[in-house]
Amino acid sequence: MHIRLVNPNTTATMTAKIEECARAVAGPGTLVDAVNPDMGPASIESHYDEALAVPGLLTEIAKGEAAGVDGYVVACFGDPGLDAAREIARGPVIGMAEAAMHMGSFLGRGFSVVTTLERSAGRTWDLAERYGMQRFCRGVHASDIPVLDLETDPEARKIITESALRAIETDNSDAILLGCAGMADLCREISAEIGVPVIDGVAAGTTLVESLVRLGLRKSGRGEFATPPPKAYIGLLREFGSAAG
Amino acid sequence: MHIRLVNPNTTATMTAKIEECARAVAGPGTLVDAVNPDMGPASIESHYDEALAVPGLLTEIAKGEAAGVDGYVVACFGDPGLDAAREIARGPVIGMAEAAMHMGSFLGRGFSVVTTLERSAGRTWDLAERYGMQRFCRGVHASDIPVLDLETDPEARKIITESALRAIETDNSDAILLGCAGMADLCREISAEIGVPVIDGVAAGTTLVESLVRLGLRKSGRGEFATPPPKAYIGLLREFGSAAG
Amino acid sequence: MHIRLVNPNTTATMTAKIEECARAVAGPGTLVDAVNPDMGPASIESHYDEALAVPGLLTEIAKGEAAGVDGYVVACFGDPGLDAAREIARGPVIGMAEAAMHMGSFLGRGFSVVTTLERSAGRTWDLAERYGMQRFCRGVHASDIPVLDLETDPEARKIITESALRAIETDNSDAILLGCAGMADLCREISAEIGVPVIDGVAAGTTLVESLVRLGLRKSGRGEFATPPPKAYIGLLREFGSAAG
Amino acid sequence: MHIRLVNPNTTATMTAKIEECARAVAGPGTLVDAVNPDMGPASIESHYDEALAVPGLLTEIAKGEAAGVDGYVVACFGDPGLDAAREIARGPVIGMAEAAMHMGSFLGRGFSVVTTLERSAGRTWDLAERYGMQRFCRGVHASDIPVLDLETDPEARKIITESALRAIETDNSDAILLGCAGMADLCREISAEIGVPVIDGVAAGTTLVESLVRLGLRKSGRGEFATPPPKAYIGLLREFGSAAG
Amino acid sequence: MHIRLVNPNTTATMTAKIEECARAVAGPGTLVDAVNPDMGPASIESHYDEALAVPGLLTEIAKGEAAGVDGYVVACFGDPGLDAAREIARGPVIGMAEAAMHMGSFLGRGFSVVTTLERSAGRTWDLAERYGMQRFCRGVHASDIPVLDLETDPEARKIITESALRAIETDNSDAILLGCAGMADLCREISAEIGVPVIDGVAAGTTLVESLVRLGLRKSGRGEFATPPPKAYIGLLREFGSAAG
Amino acid sequence: MHIRLVNPNTTATMTAKIEECARAVAGPGTLVDAVNPDMGPASIESHYDEALAVPGLLTEIAKGEAAGVDGYVVACFGDPGLDAAREIARGPVIGMAEAAMHMGSFLGRGFSVVTTLERSAGRTWDLAERYGMQRFCRGVHASDIPVLDLETDPEARKIITESALRAIETDNSDAILLGCAGMADLCREISAEIGVPVIDGVAAGTTLVESLVRLGLRKSGRGEFATPPPKAYIGLLREFGSAAG
Repeated sequence: MHIRLVNPNTTATMTAKIEECARAVAGPGTLVDAVNPDMGPASIESHYDEALAVPGLLTEIAKGEAAGVDGYVVACFGDPGLDAAREIARGPVIGMAEAAMHMGSFLGRGFSVVTTLERSAGRTWDLAERYGMQRFCRGVHASDIPVLDLETDPEARKIITESALRAIETDNSDAILLGCAGMADLCREISAEIGVPVIDGVAAGTTLVESLVRLGLRKSGRGEFATPPPKAYIGLLREFGSAAG
Repeated sequence: MHIRLVNPNTTATMTAKIEECARAVAGPGTLVDAVNPDMGPASIESHYDEALAVPGLLTEIAKGEAAGVDGYVVACFGDPGLDAAREIARGPVIGMAEAAMHMGSFLGRGFSVVTTLERSAGRTWDLAERYGMQRFCRGVHASDIPVLDLETDPEARKIITESALRAIETDNSDAILLGCAGMADLCREISAEIGVPVIDGVAAGTTLVESLVRLGLRKSGRGEFATPPPKAYIGLLREFGSAAG
Repeated sequence: MHIRLVNPNTTATMTAKIEECARAVAGPGTLVDAVNPDMGPASIESHYDEALAVPGLLTEIAKGEAAGVDGYVVACFGDPGLDAAREIARGPVIGMAEAAMHMGSFLGRGFSVVTTLERSAGRTWDLAERYGMQRFCRGVHASDIPVLDLETDPEARKIITESALRAIETDNSDAILLGCAGMADLCREISAEIGVPVIDGVAAGTTLVESLVRLGLRKSGRGEFATPPPKAYIGLLREFGSAAG
Repeated sequence: MHIRLVNPNTTATMTAKIEECARAVAGPGTLVDAVNPDMGPASIESHYDEALAVPGLLTEIAKGEAAGVDGYVVACFGDPGLDAAREIARGPVIGMAEAAMHMGSFLGRGFSVVTTLERSAGRTWDLAERYGMQRFCRGVHASDIPVLDLETDPEARKIITESALRAIETDNSDAILLGCAGMADLCREISAEIGVPVIDGVAAGTTLVESLVRLGLRKSGRGEFATPPPKAYIGLLREFGSAAG
Repeated sequence: MHIRLVNPNTTATMTAKIEECARAVAGPGTLVDAVNPDMGPASIESHYDEALAVPGLLTEIAKGEAAGVDGYVVACFGDPGLDAAREIARGPVIGMAEAAMHMGSFLGRGFSVVTTLERSAGRTWDLAERYGMQRFCRGVHASDIPVLDLETDPEARKIITESALRAIETDNSDAILLGCAGMADLCREISAEIGVPVIDGVAAGTTLVESLVRLGLRKSGRGEFATPPPKAYIGLLREFGSAAG
Repeated sequence: MHIRLVNPNTTATMTAKIEECARAVAGPGTLVDAVNPDMGPASIESHYDEALAVPGLLTEIAKGEAAGVDGYVVACFGDPGLDAAREIARGPVIGMAEAAMHMGSFLGRGFSVVTTLERSAGRTWDLAERYGMQRFCRGVHASDIPVLDLETDPEARKIITESALRAIETDNSDAILLGCAGMADLCREISAEIGVPVIDGVAAGTTLVESLVRLGLRKSGRGEFATPPPKAYIGLLREFGSAAG
């Protein structure tokens, strides 16, 4: 079984970290790798960034299909391009926010999300509603650390831990979700410190995709997520014509 | 006042039709034009098409900002890229589905949408929920006419009219929303035939943006829809770096 | 085009202010006037007042129909009698809360309402739900200024501005809605002071009714909002028999 | 204990029937009477009728307060003026739709409403939402019998029974609610014929108000339903000034 | 008419108190008694306790059916076993939380619940949703008094009164619901002290069941709550086989 | 890793089938077994049966805890006793309906459930709401095959397949959920026949619990699902005292 994580930004160090965290939880015999596109934003911190990350993400899904990948995780907490990716992949595609939220719903009455910038909170609430997880999502809390600073700021783990503690107190939550793929490596340490479960969507998504593949579950061939009808794409995006249809 | 409609697909004949329908309802003294990007899909009939139409749409918004446009309508019923467009525009941006749904809510207890392909229905329901219009949306009905065939199929108006009549009967609705910018020119004729109000989001969006501009209402400078933080965009999308920040 | 605002209370100075605020935003060539009934309460500050304002409001709508008015705004933030007014008017009728809330939904993730008395908050929440705008309404805040004191209290603008600032902070909102027609004239000043958009439903309703008229949209002749079946009205309300049917 | 039912229309024969049905279920020692206003519409079949019935209803509540009545039922299935009546009554006020819906929620998974005219269905759905009973309301079905014809049409009971049977089949419901005070006397007969519980809100409201009085439960003196602030009412409605404050 | 309250825990002193509170509100001529099972937990403070209280509760319902009881109240605020009890009883069965919440919805815009342990709050929210009362439930507040300490702790009333006052302030509520049958006897005193209505579900349930019996309303014979299909029950629970079918 | 499925009814042939289906999807190195209690109903077809199955289920969880089991699946589609089981287990507990619904939400816009008896549908809808999966659940369809007949009726698979086909047509669904543990062995065959994904909650739950264990995720020690406070349990259920606390 081959599972691929697609980091939709172009920062390769983050991709490496994602691959490592995913491999740590995959079952024996499952091949896991992570990739990122060679076009798009260096990090995703706005609706604008999300929109511009999606063509690169779809390119990576198309490459994965050619390589026989069995299932994918979209490794950015905004789950950009998830519906489009599902249209062009044969196997399951799970967003990391989707995975983290579903797993969070199994651990108690509700969870809190600790994310990077305040401006991302709206997107998180949209996803919670879309997945039916709004009733479990008790709060979205910004740590005010920009995505790429997670790689370099020596205080990052401390600040996120403090945000998590405040979130649990304020929201009376049973679990913390880490709201950025760049936080994946902090998951176990923070959980140990705060004494409540902490969920990283990168790892959660990996096991969920693995489960779906093992269960033999993939989209039906008809309906909203069937392969898109083929058509002309012009200009810079001309190459995309062949992935559809 | 200068209002611009952005057709996010690359079909210029549709753009011309959109411009004509928008001009027919604009107030005296309002300059209205319509544009389309020079990259992207020829029509939008899947999540995949939507995702690939957005970079071109955002380029057009950026051009409009440089030209001093006061407000925009996204002239595709999936309202692709609306959140991202709001981040980079100074003035209001309204999606045509958003406009049609809100206007529909003023006309009675509920409306039905007549759209092109069945696979678009899910997106319409997502938008209805996002805008708070789910309680007014009583049904989404596919006419099974592909978008570009609206331009050429001599039976198109007849088929859509029949879908509209069935929708009203089935859903007990007070109005019909036309679920594609390519149907904009059919609005008054179909309304006359079926005897209930028919709403074209292209026209509805034009008057709503005009209203917002006249009221002096635009997003606040802070929060989720503030200008995105600037950063590097690499590869094919390199040019986008300058629109943010 | 002739648009009429009906102030459902009997205070003529408020009617004059409403007319002025509406005219300031109407398009060129649109005739705008404001009226108030000659029976009913001097201000509307309870469900009881609302109920007793409605017969007078409906009299004014009936007069407007006789005079060929094209559309109406109910100029009280409780939107009293809106459904009944829609039954007897040929053209569109919009409530000022309805207008303000819809416009507010275009400006960001959510808005706060600053109203007069605490006891009005429940009605505002009911309307938000009715219009599908509950998801955008983040808070309703009383300024504790009785409606008629808005005309005379020299501190009114200052108190409302402070309520608005607190509301934005508490609710993390993107816009403020002024929850009383008596605040219409304060809109631009308060917006300038607090730096986020402020919406007056009197002005918003005027542009929305204008839009609907320009789009040719009015209720269908059948269903819930069709002209009421004629019947006898006895006693003090005998005169109303002729407006129905 | 003195409980009063207020029929908000002016048809005395309906008032007499309501009184009879209420008395049949009241506990020993409870005084029950029914009244109707001497102004307003002969029957209530539109939002317009409802609006014009409310001033008369409020007059009757004010008279009841002067007479020391302990609690009230609003005996029209649209529950007109309920919020306003609660403001001016010291004891509990229950709407007949409110009573029927709550009772219906105790009998199974869901109920259907059989009402008079199709145009009343929207109001019923609004009330179901307002009372939290939307999840139990599975359908609203018009019998197409005008209110006053219930008194005279020899086929009325047969038609309503057939509507009820169809409703149960269509909605898979556990109970039927009779959607008009004019149907109160048909309740037991129809229930016997169709073999599922049938609920008349006139009787249900009587026992609920009796329960509230016996429990000593009435609104608190503060907040939304406190006595309205006193003020001037002018014109035809001048007399109402004294009921408030 | 014979109404029985079933205290689902095994503490007889609490059963006696429940009987007394129920008798105080029953109408003249209504026989009211209270019972408790002779197996199960001494108090109910967890999902585990609830689950283990239900077999005993069902035994008591089966005994009541044999004795010709007309209706039942489940006298524990978690309403354990309500659906199952409805299946095996011919007459109405009401949970005390169900009763209190419905009554609370008649008294204003919203209520707060004061309960025993924090861990019970989730169950209360689940019930509020199940009954459609979520929109009225503004908060659930733990007094941190274990159920059986209500019988012995001399400070209990004082602590609950203080919780109630805080709840009203925090939630801006119109009424307080006492979240445990063990608080039934405190209802009138606390209400007098805090000046807003306080609802005890034991008393509320008694009058509601009485109302249903007087109205002749009981479940229909078909559907979800029909008598369960008979079958073998083995082991410790063998005796239960006869109650079904 | 040791995962245990608890069949809450007492039919050992069904337990054997459940174990087989679970083993087929478990990862290499995971020990999977299935057990059933020695008290309770032979099958679960009512709220009454569910209530009486729970003490036996909890006994099996307590035994599992003593044996060091890492996680559990409740292998009955009503997910009986799930909250109570979570209180006394250290590791994760997942209901088979919960598992199937979450997995179903990843495969498209919505799913249909094919269950045994019509009277179980209400319970399924309650669970869908509880898990946030209501928006994905498009219909619950009874096959009218009693649970134990699934073992013996040679037509069972054919009837369920036909129900599934009708459900997909009626609900326009993307997947089918099998609404009974007794159908687990039919999953792949029916999927092959109908051409859309079919989900068995027994298998789905097994992979989900495995995922949670591999991710190191279990409830926090505080809050609603902490170990219940210890107390006396008397009578037939005396033995349960020791599992709590």
